[in-house]
Amino acid sequence: MNEAHSQNHPQHHENEQAARPGEPHPDKPRPSRRSVLWTAGAAGAGLGLGGLTAGSAAATDRTAAPADAAKSGPGALGAAAPEARGRTMIGVPFEGRRTVRVGIIGLGNRGGTMIDLFLAVPGVRVVALCDPVKEKTAKAAKKVTDAGQPAPAVYTHGEHDFENLCRRGDLDFVYAATPWDLHFEMARTAMLHGKHVGVECPLALRLDQLWELVDLSERTRRHCLQLENCCYGRNELRVLRMAHAGLFGDLLHGAGAYNHDLRGLMFDPEYYEGPWRRLWHTRLRGDLYSNHGFGPVANYMDVNRGDRAVRISSFGTPALGLAAYRKAHMPPGDPSWKESYIESDRTISLVQTAKGRVIRLEHDVSTPHPYSRINSLGGTKGVFEDYPERIYLEPDQSNDEWGDFARYADWDHWLWKEHANPPGGHGGMDYMMVFRLMQCMRLGLVPDFDVYDAATWTAPVPLSDASLKAKGEPQEFPDFTRGQWKHARTGMDSAKPEE
Amino acid sequence: MNEAHSQNHPQHHENEQAARPGEPHPDKPRPSRRSVLWTAGAAGAGLGLGGLTAGSAAATDRTAAPADAAKSGPGALGAAAPEARGRTMIGVPFEGRRTVRVGIIGLGNRGGTMIDLFLAVPGVRVVALCDPVKEKTAKAAKKVTDAGQPAPAVYTHGEHDFENLCRRGDLDFVYAATPWDLHFEMARTAMLHGKHVGVECPLALRLDQLWELVDLSERTRRHCLQLENCCYGRNELRVLRMAHAGLFGDLLHGAGAYNHDLRGLMFDPEYYEGPWRRLWHTRLRGDLYSNHGFGPVANYMDVNRGDRAVRISSFGTPALGLAAYRKAHMPPGDPSWKESYIESDRTISLVQTAKGRVIRLEHDVSTPHPYSRINSLGGTKGVFEDYPERIYLEPDQSNDEWGDFARYADWDHWLWKEHANPPGGHGGMDYMMVFRLMQCMRLGLVPDFDVYDAATWTAPVPLSDASLKAKGEPQEFPDFTRGQWKHARTGMDSAKPEE
Repeated sequence: MNEAHSQNHPQHHENEQAARPGEPHPDKPRPSRRSVLWTAGAAGAGLGLGGLTAGSAAATDRTAAPADAAKSGPGALGAAAPEARGRTMIGVPFEGRRTVRVGIIGLGNRGGTMIDLFLAVPGVRVVALCDPVKEKTAKAAKKVTDAGQPAPAVYTHGEHDFENLCRRGDLDFVYAATPWDLHFEMARTAMLHGKHVGVECPLALRLDQLWELVDLSERTRRHCLQLENCCYGRNELRVLRMAHAGLFGDLLHGAGAYNHDLRGLMFDPEYYEGPWRRLWHTRLRGDLYSNHGFGPVANYMDVNRGDRAVRISSFGTPALGLAAYRKAHMPPGDPSWKESYIESDRTISLVQTAKGRVIRLEHDVSTPHPYSRINSLGGTKGVFEDYPERIYLEPDQSNDEWGDFARYADWDHWLWKEHANPPGGHGGMDYMMVFRLMQCMRLGLVPDFDVYDAATWTAPVPLSDASLKAKGEPQEFPDFTRGQWKHARTGMDSAKPEE
Repeated sequence: MNEAHSQNHPQHHENEQAARPGEPHPDKPRPSRRSVLWTAGAAGAGLGLGGLTAGSAAATDRTAAPADAAKSGPGALGAAAPEARGRTMIGVPFEGRRTVRVGIIGLGNRGGTMIDLFLAVPGVRVVALCDPVKEKTAKAAKKVTDAGQPAPAVYTHGEHDFENLCRRGDLDFVYAATPWDLHFEMARTAMLHGKHVGVECPLALRLDQLWELVDLSERTRRHCLQLENCCYGRNELRVLRMAHAGLFGDLLHGAGAYNHDLRGLMFDPEYYEGPWRRLWHTRLRGDLYSNHGFGPVANYMDVNRGDRAVRISSFGTPALGLAAYRKAHMPPGDPSWKESYIESDRTISLVQTAKGRVIRLEHDVSTPHPYSRINSLGGTKGVFEDYPERIYLEPDQSNDEWGDFARYADWDHWLWKEHANPPGGHGGMDYMMVFRLMQCMRLGLVPDFDVYDAATWTAPVPLSDASLKAKGEPQEFPDFTRGQWKHARTGMDSAKPEE
């Protein structure tokens, strides 16, 4: 296993964001975050057509949609694009600035380490922090001052203090690393207050929410980004550049996955802040975490940049893994014994693109198996497969014998050539993502990825749930770009800019 | 790569049967085998309800079905089981005999080498041979006499002489290794003449034909077998035994494939007898060759022995590989330039079983990639993946680190323990299959596999074609056992019999 491989293939929890966004006030019962946010999403904080102010108007039609949009079946909320109310965000550059001022919401496992990267990138200042867990916020604030930056403002007063962070006038970018339920609300609030925003995976869990974020990005002219670190993996960026240079010929198929055994972490009382991560397995079927697998392959195939996903069909296995783990490891009386897990332990989805290509997605976090994002690509001239990495491209390889991917190191992305020993987790891909995003913001460039990518990479979450319920019936894939996918443009295969 | 691995993973054409069943009479134009057989299948050689004699009565309803059964859509010919007209063949033993008398039809690449194995197995006599290519028949006949057996009868007089072979009174078993179109007709004719029959993959290419063979096996009380050699691979049999012993826990998912780059062979003017193999890519969509991938995984999951396939959905890529190869390698004016290839270069199918498990099948013979049948199995206790072989079973493995499959050699099937250095191709699995089948015939045992397995493993061929045409819509999978799948019984995980 060479260095590139081990860097890109973490064996453990690193690939799972797991923030601690807050704990309840000690003297009152802890409210369910889910109920808080579902309520907010359904009725509160409505978006008026005129003023882009949080909480200023009644809910729109879309925010009043059924709580579980996936139940409405194919096409109901998926394929039909709502009328555009703002211009496209495709190709829209950031405003240039000498310094990017960042606010971070959620300082748990993920946010509490990602802050190191924001502090390590030149031209970035971390000016505000939010997490109801005061000691986590304080620890993060110390990191800021240790880095020689002024003490950041801190927001630790309960579930809604993040709104005050978003309200600040001295912020350019809000980064949210919180439990999944909260991503949608935080992205929305940040944009409503004029901030560009990046959230951890998944962007949101319902199709109507994905559409709302697209709409809001278009109307506020703020970028809403899925911080999909795996797209910046060394292997992924190398394959991307090789694919776009034609080394694979005409592209035909690819595959990506989030096959990561999280049983131990999901039942660990300390790792996550409460059982929210495990509880998703009682709430939603299918592929709960499609971005890590879908993002890189979508990039190879220029999804939203010349091709698009048109339909998806998902098949899933019974859900036996978590219950088996519980039986083996959890004491009688543990609260988890009241939970009923729904399918599936392994979900396999097939996505067809407008050009007829097929992308296979897999999700399995509840059975024993080594970590794999699969990460494969095939075309008329050859194929790449990862885990372990190997390549077969004509005419370099022949006789059915895999070739050494290290031979293609010259194809590395300039980011990886420039930052040979990047700091931070996941072998450096986190740093590449943060560095490049902050660079785009400083230099006033178009970001490598946008709200359409965010919504597209995430859409398999509700669509796979719907397809499983419909016994594998294909679901129409929304065209979040509203027809703009037909135009070729660069994405992560950027050229190095002049500083 | 250890010995077991290299034995089981041929790099080249060995896994493709490629017989030369006949050449046209030199002084007349060569008829299309396809037209000959489609005609025969639709109207000739009908099966009377009473006398089981070829050509004795009008076509049955099923033989009069549309030429392309898959066009009729889901359920039309697939899910609805025709009324049974004979008792089940499940659990029906062969009649015991001291010597098995074998006739072989098709002495090309496949039949011309498989004959060596029939001659190598104790208690088998090869008594009749058929191939219109006289020199091939003569060469095979010499092999028989070289082995010390009496000179076999030979049948070399054109397209229909195989019927005379089937008519012989001194044959117990007919083996057919011919182009795909002919398998159905040969299996049918053999059974009508009272012979057990085994054919190379695929058994047939239409659902109505599969049902007809099931019906005929039940009525003639003759076994109709798909000689699926990959089921007898060392890895496959080891995984089968481990799965049935519970080492994988509750089974959840598996995958199999025929990903074999056949471009060179399909355009080679010598390898196949004419362009028939390549022409299938102008005639039928989807997974043309499902058995090698499906058979082993179906066995792991006890398909037809406690579980069954209930639906299948197939997605396919554009068909660009063969045209690209032609452009690069074939001279102007080559007849292949008149061909139009239909999708897909890579077909991926998802099969759901009655127990909710998911089996992924892949087929790709027209793009560059190393050989793989994928061959994976996952359950609540771990996972096996092949190409390269690796295993992760709790508690033997931990920390996301693959284990060495060689560690589980004690789980090898008795066939592999007994025949450490088997003769023949495919690393010995051909021999295991022939040895075991002939053993069952000699000893009067129930065969390891039957007509229901043959039809099930082959059904993805027409079903994937139908699903691709329906944009991935799931197709109902026929229950060829008519409800008998619910009963557990042994298959290839046999115990060594007393000789």
